[in-house]
Amino acid sequence: MRSRCDQLATEEPLEIRLVSPQKTVAVTMRTPGADFELAAGFLYTEGVVKSRKEIPRISYCINPNIEGEQRFNIVNVKLTEGLSLDLQPLERHFLTTSACGVCGKASLEALRFRECPVISQEPIVPTKVIYSLTEQLQNAQRIFSRTGGLHAAALFDAQGQLLSVREDVGRHNALDKLIGWALLRGELPLSHHIVMVSGRSSFEIVQKCLAAGVPIVCAVSAPSSLAVMVAREFNITLVGFLRGERFNVYSGRERICLEEV
Amino acid sequence: MRSRCDQLATEEPLEIRLVSPQKTVAVTMRTPGADFELAAGFLYTEGVVKSRKEIPRISYCINPNIEGEQRFNIVNVKLTEGLSLDLQPLERHFLTTSACGVCGKASLEALRFRECPVISQEPIVPTKVIYSLTEQLQNAQRIFSRTGGLHAAALFDAQGQLLSVREDVGRHNALDKLIGWALLRGELPLSHHIVMVSGRSSFEIVQKCLAAGVPIVCAVSAPSSLAVMVAREFNITLVGFLRGERFNVYSGRERICLEEV
Repeated sequence: MRSRCDQLATEEPLEIRLVSPQKTVAVTMRTPGADFELAAGFLYTEGVVKSRKEIPRISYCINPNIEGEQRFNIVNVKLTEGLSLDLQPLERHFLTTSACGVCGKASLEALRFRECPVISQEPIVPTKVIYSLTEQLQNAQRIFSRTGGLHAAALFDAQGQLLSVREDVGRHNALDKLIGWALLRGELPLSHHIVMVSGRSSFEIVQKCLAAGVPIVCAVSAPSSLAVMVAREFNITLVGFLRGERFNVYSGRERICLEEV
Repeated sequence: MRSRCDQLATEEPLEIRLVSPQKTVAVTMRTPGADFELAAGFLYTEGVVKSRKEIPRISYCINPNIEGEQRFNIVNVKLTEGLSLDLQPLERHFLTTSACGVCGKASLEALRFRECPVISQEPIVPTKVIYSLTEQLQNAQRIFSRTGGLHAAALFDAQGQLLSVREDVGRHNALDKLIGWALLRGELPLSHHIVMVSGRSSFEIVQKCLAAGVPIVCAVSAPSSLAVMVAREFNITLVGFLRGERFNVYSGRERICLEEV
């Protein structure tokens, strides 16, 4: 047994607060960095805000009574005055439609009632674009190679060019950061883009991509049954087990063509 | 591109309800199976119940108005009459101690105020026991090999004998099922046991093991910084990157001995 230094992925809580009226909407365990994107992405993918212009300001907590370290664990989000705030989506996991109903079907149903972008029929991408994603994601994940502890979400255009990558100890946070990045740049919906995540694709991963209008979602590992149901219902191409030049398509295979285009 | 059948890991919501007074305490996306263990383990590791005897009955929802499929997505938990119910722990992520305080230190602080079992100084285990865990976990994960989509949590005794394994699409759920299994059999705290999880170890993984009194926690992948902080604070042995005969120890290395015992 030898003693040596190891780098760890930092995990710290982030509190996301709305101001006027002040309300804590979430505390999530995350890797510090891209916190404003995380807050914006979370509020967007959870259905609280619907566009960039509803968020005039995001800042760290500047209460002088708190310690320096903690300031960077609290993000204040100012929303447009007079916005009719619907915090119900945040309670989505606690409430479903019918009297005693909680099931995959009800979860799908709840999504239908949200104002999600219509998923574009395009783009049609050649397999070689899909093949190129794994290596690009790996190259981009420099932190991962050091700590082995971070999930990643990456955004590509239809030609397979990497546009952005975000990492986090939490899968959902990495994706919220990525979508928040696009939201703050005014680039939503991502209707001609490809998102790739480092782990598995769950209901929540596909639901967040749906909220951002992403037509093609790829994952290194397996999808869950409910992820496939959501992808099929909303016409999203869902790729799993993408490793180099091998992958499975679980939904929307018409967007992937074997010939060059 | 070829078309063939693939098995998917099932993901369905589970609603955990307390009866009298009726209150939904959680809806979690989980792999169906071991639902009573999941409910019991969740309530225990979140600090709502403190022993087996506080849960006289767990059953599926039997409301005749709901569809058959949905009944198995709702678990009713009856707690002992007159139990002073503290649901505050469930809001732990929303509330911290100080005025404007949310940080790793505050999360640790909150744990100190919970009645967790004191972690035993024992057992002392030889490295060969730790070496044996990976293969045993893999052999036990039969579903995993088919779908590639499930996380696992396994319980071993100090001699490295596998006692139980539970799987789920969610890491925390797999661990809650495992701890719930032990709780329902009246075997908590697990003060001479080893827990191994298939993924990374986060704050929540270590916190749940702490609640169950587990002295040795092993993971296939990396721990987060906060997982290491909690393990060190509460004297838990934390092993990461356990793959066959290689592993790192991040905390409590005195429980692992190089010689045979």
